[in-house]
Amino acid sequence: MIDERILRPDLLRKIVTAEQAAQFIQDGMVVGSSGFTKAGDSKAVLLALAERAKQDPLKITLITGASLGQDTDAALAGSHALSRRMPFQVDPVLRKSINNGEVMFIDHHLCETVEQLQNRHLPPMDIAVIEATLIEEDGSLVPTTSVGNSAHFAALAQKVIVEVNLSMPLTLCGLHDIFLTGGYPNRSIIPITSPSTRIGRASIPIDPEKIVAVVITEIHDSPAQIVPPDEKTTAIASHLLEFFNHEVRMGRLKESLLPLQAGIGKVANAVLSGFLDSSFHDLTMYSEVLQDSTFELFDAGKMTFASASSITVSEACYARIMKDFNRYKNKIVLRPQNISNSPEVIRRMGVIGINTAIEFDLYGNVNSTHIGGTKMMNGIGGSGDFARNAFLSIFVTQAASKENTISHVLPMVSHVDHTEHDVDILVTDQGLADLRGLAPRERADIILQHCVHPEYRDALKDYSDRARKRGGHTPHVLEEAFSWHTRLAEHGTMKA
Amino acid sequence: MIDERILRPDLLRKIVTAEQAAQFIQDGMVVGSSGFTKAGDSKAVLLALAERAKQDPLKITLITGASLGQDTDAALAGSHALSRRMPFQVDPVLRKSINNGEVMFIDHHLCETVEQLQNRHLPPMDIAVIEATLIEEDGSLVPTTSVGNSAHFAALAQKVIVEVNLSMPLTLCGLHDIFLTGGYPNRSIIPITSPSTRIGRASIPIDPEKIVAVVITEIHDSPAQIVPPDEKTTAIASHLLEFFNHEVRMGRLKESLLPLQAGIGKVANAVLSGFLDSSFHDLTMYSEVLQDSTFELFDAGKMTFASASSITVSEACYARIMKDFNRYKNKIVLRPQNISNSPEVIRRMGVIGINTAIEFDLYGNVNSTHIGGTKMMNGIGGSGDFARNAFLSIFVTQAASKENTISHVLPMVSHVDHTEHDVDILVTDQGLADLRGLAPRERADIILQHCVHPEYRDALKDYSDRARKRGGHTPHVLEEAFSWHTRLAEHGTMKA
Ligand SMILES: CC(C)(COP(=O)(O)OP(=O)(O)OC[C@H]1O[C@@H](n2cnc3c(N)ncnc32)[C@H](O)[C@@H]1OP(=O)(O)O)[C@@H](O)C(=O)NCCC(=O)NCCS
Ligand SMILES: CC(C)(COP(=O)(O)OP(=O)(O)OC[C@H]1O[C@@H](n2cnc3c(N)ncnc32)[C@H](O)[C@@H]1OP(=O)(O)O)[C@@H](O)C(=O)NCCC(=O)NCCS
Repeated sequence: MIDERILRPDLLRKIVTAEQAAQFIQDGMVVGSSGFTKAGDSKAVLLALAERAKQDPLKITLITGASLGQDTDAALAGSHALSRRMPFQVDPVLRKSINNGEVMFIDHHLCETVEQLQNRHLPPMDIAVIEATLIEEDGSLVPTTSVGNSAHFAALAQKVIVEVNLSMPLTLCGLHDIFLTGGYPNRSIIPITSPSTRIGRASIPIDPEKIVAVVITEIHDSPAQIVPPDEKTTAIASHLLEFFNHEVRMGRLKESLLPLQAGIGKVANAVLSGFLDSSFHDLTMYSEVLQDSTFELFDAGKMTFASASSITVSEACYARIMKDFNRYKNKIVLRPQNISNSPEVIRRMGVIGINTAIEFDLYGNVNSTHIGGTKMMNGIGGSGDFARNAFLSIFVTQAASKENTISHVLPMVSHVDHTEHDVDILVTDQGLADLRGLAPRERADIILQHCVHPEYRDALKDYSDRARKRGGHTPHVLEEAFSWHTRLAEHGTMKA
Repeated sequence: MIDERILRPDLLRKIVTAEQAAQFIQDGMVVGSSGFTKAGDSKAVLLALAERAKQDPLKITLITGASLGQDTDAALAGSHALSRRMPFQVDPVLRKSINNGEVMFIDHHLCETVEQLQNRHLPPMDIAVIEATLIEEDGSLVPTTSVGNSAHFAALAQKVIVEVNLSMPLTLCGLHDIFLTGGYPNRSIIPITSPSTRIGRASIPIDPEKIVAVVITEIHDSPAQIVPPDEKTTAIASHLLEFFNHEVRMGRLKESLLPLQAGIGKVANAVLSGFLDSSFHDLTMYSEVLQDSTFELFDAGKMTFASASSITVSEACYARIMKDFNRYKNKIVLRPQNISNSPEVIRRMGVIGINTAIEFDLYGNVNSTHIGGTKMMNGIGGSGDFARNAFLSIFVTQAASKENTISHVLPMVSHVDHTEHDVDILVTDQGLADLRGLAPRERADIILQHCVHPEYRDALKDYSDRARKRGGHTPHVLEEAFSWHTRLAEHGTMKA
């Protein structure tokens, strides 16, 4: 069994327990880990480290692809083992440590982490933990359900610990397309011209001398929590499908659209599922994450190819696709996240990006990260990589939440992640605002008309009217711009 | 003389006066024009249109490369001839019309205007006015001192008016590298791997049937106003040179650095001039605009090659370089602005971007466009194209201005153009903040230490301390975040 997975015999001697492997990680180190939206993460070594840190205090810098599963971030934050964390997380315990200032969180555009490492704008990486399906004879690593930043971590880290996960089917071999951009000044073109273009090799090259330990696991990826569509997400999805139909009628898009990107979460899933009963066909994805809906679209014959950096699906979907992965293999490629999220490729292919906002404002600036302008939610993730370079940049959110005490459409966002330049279409359950080619005052009119919740429309219109009296390209009443946020903080509602 | 410039005889019959040519432009039309930072703009037809509009009211949508010279924007705005204007301007009269809501200004990342036109996210272009040095036998146009968006305008507009400018030396022929990216879904790679790579042809292809009029002019480009370095710009330049020296010592950069981009204006010029007396050598540029300093660096043997979309220099420099342009021709290429500002190429080559901020905040968010959060100054220009994709993204500004009644380092910027993710280095005359790899609270510490004017340091520190008591990843006292701006508006100073 194990020698089917470790084809390089000298590495069999390096097999140790997770606890033993974790000993290679010392206080103060910069540690890389595989893992992207819970898929393909370290499932044993980092948890063993968190356990050890309870007795033997230590602090590391942890750099991953994106979020981890297995509640690893909670375990590490709970043991106070993190001094710095980048580039993304979704964990409530870690979130608390970030917001109280214990953990320094560095929130990256997901394509940029390895840029900064390669450019030495970040400190050197001491050690990386990488989950693999298989170690090839030359030592190279076949990743599991994500590539994330693992290929560059393997190249840049001083030492590497491999977690060979026996629960990952060997049919995953051949799924990945590993391409390293290389350093400056002689950097290569990324020659991808369609989601299905393959430009690299199937495994992550590595100097086998660097592999200091191999750990065997059989743990499944943490499943995605699939929330069934509700009234609001269904409304958002239907506004968006109506818009795509309109674009086809206007001749600006074909029924195969252009490659789709969709952020994680229930809205993205609802939108993609909406294509099931539509006239769209031959769809493709060039995204970060493949979710349940992608596989539903494959099964329905609606989607022809999907490129991403990870597969993050529900428990049921996971069981189904892993049982016979060969069914999907020739329709999927997983890439390093600086390729899946590459500005170059996204712009070249004209990706349609659909991401979720926490809130947006009258002029179409979007906040994806900060609650009340100060508290980090998850991070910007790949939303900026796509929004900036997309053919169409779409943001969705509910118009209001928490019994309508919170409006998600505001006079001014309390934090800006995506400026109005990078936002073409805004959708709430109330409707869709098509902002293309409009100046700020016109954007405000359309947003007021289509997106804001009725209970907040008059107040927002009143703000807008009074701001215009003062003038300016982007009118504001600066001293009131955050009054809805401060009212919520003081009185528990944004309503006056 | 003229038949040396118009090599296609049937076009000689289309020579008309500027006033006659302007008759092709009608009320309600979408009009394109050459011109990028005052260089290579329409110098006669648009002014004739402005004149006509005084008698015969009309309103057009005007789309250019960037800003125009000849006070054309002032003339058009003064005649109320503009309903919509994009993607950039620097004119005081037009600025007023934008800020009072008369002209709808659409502020683009400069690489995106032709994307939006091609994708039909903007209305179709009725007519374009393009300045040329020469019309080739096949009708194709050799641009003058800028390429801007002219190549795509020639392809997309229904009709084209050519202004042949006899004052432009014929030695400009061969300077330009015209490459069109084409539409989706089959878009090509932009195969530039160094500033000097040529990938296209020397003239703008055009269907000669589209050329409805040719106008002959002899008018020089409006000169750049070169402000001599003062104490503040010299201090900024010296902090920046010290930083580059440090990066060389740390082995992160070579003495040839990486291709440089510099925004227009006195600080950029001062920084570039600072390289004259430095140990840096074999410098290159991959920028939007070439200014006086570029030619000084060529003359001093410090710079080997410069790529841009325009040449915008002082009167003296213009006279000098135009007299013997062959001296510089093999060291320069002018490209379409979606190529000079292409995310793909900027990221691939690792450009070092140096741009000017109006203000920045405690966490390193940058405002490049809006005074007091509402009034448009010029537009975002290319600053975002470079800042997002650069190897190093640098923003400079004075620490305080107007007898220190205005601090340019603030609790929160009143408008965000560049988020903290896209800002690596901030420089004021007070010092330089190296923000790489830091979390927001750490960024604040460094900015407080190095950038803020001493007269504002205690107040900003006090804000920061009180904000941290409230907690959050990016601490703020939301109800006070704009109090410095509102104090300035009310009391004429940001000081408490
Ligand atoms: C933006 C993002 C947080 C939205 O996630 P989501 O779970 O779909 O969003 P929801 O609207 O359901 O939840 C947002 C929460 O913030 C709350 N909220 C929103 N505005 C608020 C405000 N002004 N004050 C307080 N709470 C607020 C909502 O009420 C909701 O609370 P809940 O979780 O207790 O119900 C998430 O998509 C994200 O992290 N995006 C950034 C990364 C990204 O886009 N990556 C791209 C591809 S993976
Ligand atoms: C940002 C930009 C406007 C700075 O231009 P600049 O002339 O170097 O800037 P200065 O700091 O000298 O001038 C800014 C003015 O705003 C004023 N100002 C700044 N903050 C202010 C505030 N909060 N309230 C009122 N006025 C303010 C300054 O006092 C100064 O006034 P003045 O012109 O009357 O002296 C300019 O670089 C720009 O338009 N950039 C965006 C485009 C770009 O970066 N393109 C990239 C490549 S071309």
